[in-house]
Amino acid sequence: MNTRETLSVTDSGNLQIGGVNVKELASLYGTPLYVFDKAYIKNICAIFSDSIKRFYGNGKIFYASKAFSCKEIYRIIKEKDLGADVVSVGEIFTALSSGFAAEDLCFHGNNKSASDLEYAVKQGIGYIVIDALSEIDDLNGICKQLNRRQKVLLRVNPGVEAHTHHYIQTAKPDSKFGFSIENGDADIAVKKLVNADNIDFCGLHCHIGSQIFEKTSFLIAVDKMTDYYKKVCEVFGAKLSVLDLGGGFGIYYTDADPKFKYVDYADYIKAICEKLNDCVKSKSINKPYLILEPGRSIVGEAGITLYTVGRIKQISGIKNYLAIDGGMFENPRFALYQAQYTVLAAEKGLDKPTKSYTIAGKCCESGDLIAENVKLPEVNEGDLLAVLSTGAYNYSMASNYNRNFIPPVVMVENGKSYICVKKQDFNDIVRNDI
Amino acid sequence: MNTRETLSVTDSGNLQIGGVNVKELASLYGTPLYVFDKAYIKNICAIFSDSIKRFYGNGKIFYASKAFSCKEIYRIIKEKDLGADVVSVGEIFTALSSGFAAEDLCFHGNNKSASDLEYAVKQGIGYIVIDALSEIDDLNGICKQLNRRQKVLLRVNPGVEAHTHHYIQTAKPDSKFGFSIENGDADIAVKKLVNADNIDFCGLHCHIGSQIFEKTSFLIAVDKMTDYYKKVCEVFGAKLSVLDLGGGFGIYYTDADPKFKYVDYADYIKAICEKLNDCVKSKSINKPYLILEPGRSIVGEAGITLYTVGRIKQISGIKNYLAIDGGMFENPRFALYQAQYTVLAAEKGLDKPTKSYTIAGKCCESGDLIAENVKLPEVNEGDLLAVLSTGAYNYSMASNYNRNFIPPVVMVENGKSYICVKKQDFNDIVRNDI
Repeated sequence: MNTRETLSVTDSGNLQIGGVNVKELASLYGTPLYVFDKAYIKNICAIFSDSIKRFYGNGKIFYASKAFSCKEIYRIIKEKDLGADVVSVGEIFTALSSGFAAEDLCFHGNNKSASDLEYAVKQGIGYIVIDALSEIDDLNGICKQLNRRQKVLLRVNPGVEAHTHHYIQTAKPDSKFGFSIENGDADIAVKKLVNADNIDFCGLHCHIGSQIFEKTSFLIAVDKMTDYYKKVCEVFGAKLSVLDLGGGFGIYYTDADPKFKYVDYADYIKAICEKLNDCVKSKSINKPYLILEPGRSIVGEAGITLYTVGRIKQISGIKNYLAIDGGMFENPRFALYQAQYTVLAAEKGLDKPTKSYTIAGKCCESGDLIAENVKLPEVNEGDLLAVLSTGAYNYSMASNYNRNFIPPVVMVENGKSYICVKKQDFNDIVRNDI
Repeated sequence: MNTRETLSVTDSGNLQIGGVNVKELASLYGTPLYVFDKAYIKNICAIFSDSIKRFYGNGKIFYASKAFSCKEIYRIIKEKDLGADVVSVGEIFTALSSGFAAEDLCFHGNNKSASDLEYAVKQGIGYIVIDALSEIDDLNGICKQLNRRQKVLLRVNPGVEAHTHHYIQTAKPDSKFGFSIENGDADIAVKKLVNADNIDFCGLHCHIGSQIFEKTSFLIAVDKMTDYYKKVCEVFGAKLSVLDLGGGFGIYYTDADPKFKYVDYADYIKAICEKLNDCVKSKSINKPYLILEPGRSIVGEAGITLYTVGRIKQISGIKNYLAIDGGMFENPRFALYQAQYTVLAAEKGLDKPTKSYTIAGKCCESGDLIAENVKLPEVNEGDLLAVLSTGAYNYSMASNYNRNFIPPVVMVENGKSYICVKKQDFNDIVRNDI
């Protein structure tokens, strides 16, 4: 188990998060329940922000809010002086509704429509990340019509794809995102941007992967991106000042992931910043404003999901199925990616794991599982179960599959808890039904 | 393409569904748009209902509404005199809100909580399908307290698992659902049910698989289920009168599926009914009331999804990415199961497919695709695209991932269209955010 200051087991064996006993949370808010450790979020934000200041000086962290988007998370992020990535008008609206400043938002997406772009420009969004040739024409036209200028970055593929423990270099990335540097597609987009007279072409963006634990891929990306940054400025005459290296920093899901209590994000950032400083000097380019976009790494480990154990079905010689009151409607990541999670008997933290359980959701679908063959102490119906590291891509991907209710979201900090997303009810389920 | 009376291409090459040109639908309701062909639904309902009457006499079709649940579908199903399967209190509520009779509902699920059961009993639900030992105690207690009796079926595993084109027989099914007949688990549940004095143990249920095209597995299931039906009546003294054989009838997604215009459901039902009649005679059991539970087969092919083509990215030597205004938030089946779909250029039905496209969604995730390498005529931004056979497990699984809006649902029939689920908007997105 990946315990830390704000996630621990009490003397009576109960899991405690942010100083609040999970039994209290379950009794106050019911289950299933998404619980976020606010101190953890703020701490990770500070680690990222301080590191970029300390090791580089000129830059900012933008939280990739698709990992977990609701009004409250934008408030917390804002308080920690981060910007935010948004990927839809829905995320823009949510951020602005929470009091977030539009200029601190960066709008991504492989298929932003003309009306999406118009909405963003009208709100005064900070950056739009260009991801298609026709998007340049659309945006330029919209800016002209609205008599506005818009700052943009260009999403390029530097030819490095990072995976959890390895990376590959490729000249022609097969991706719906961005423009390849090496096959010349990026050059075409750059020329178009340089000639777009209502657009301020400010910089380059890349995103090399997800759940990355090794650093080399980032350092290769810095090298390739600064090469291209130099080319865009010197060959194409663009006045770039921003380099956005995306996110993808790994988090701890299970003991199969690297065994450190915190992934050392400061160490990542330091390596990236040092490499960038080196490249700036050796390549004689202006020192770009550095943007990094962590999402999962800010909220992933901050979140846990609490469940009540329901029906238990012991199939002799096969499996012990333990059904929870949640499932793929509120955490589809096992069904989607066979994602692995750490599961705890939340009131039996002092007991030895003795039995193997497969955690099944309550949806009418055989593939609706949360984890297979996890070791737990013997548990009974009515016991509380906790699944760790559910802060990213759980609530944000939740659905009403089987017309189940999306669970509420609670923040905990310093022994106190409060609701930040209310539980759904019957009215939500039929709200748009005629 | 799997055309039929209600889905065709006009002389000008436009797709038409239920007598309505898709261009008209897109202009009236926008895209993405779920469109359901009401005549198709009613026709399939009639095929199933008529077949069970004609070939067996004593039985009823229950629509498995998890495939597509909203008030309007329950109205249509009711009009066709079908019952409905429900798998959550949310589905029960939706059905009842539409005017459906509680006694025509059958409540399934591997983890129905005590409060779910209480809700169902209070509503006067037709059948509850028992799927766990402790559920029997809970239900019996609830019935006693409420001074009600409840009719139940028992979900058993007959040891046959059917897949699209093959089946396997297994003595110990590895499933979160039901009780194995062969390993004796079912006997334990039966004894418990026979002794539960507030429960009317009426029959047995099984569900052998999904998207099944061959018949033999159903016939084996009939044989095994009637064997067990006989044993339960004769050995355990239960007074059974219902046999529920579940659903799983295959539908046409692409040309890789069996090549008939309609899957011949009448033929399936005939084979099942004949086998059941034979078994009733040869085993000297009472003739059970037969329930069948088609879901996907009633609504799957009835539905299409309309999209507007957005950004197109041609990566030389790799792929042509065509981005649509939808994606995994409204159809997660490619991401979940690598499900295959037929994709059409909805205004170019007369043009030859000349180019290979990969249909990408607008979510910020590389795996957000709808189909890979499908052949289409050359298409341009702004063109309409149709994905066929999206009626099942698309709207029902839709989420607000990336804070995108869930598209509206429209019914078409006889040249007319009407909204049955309204489009989401900003208010839906932040409705429960504090």
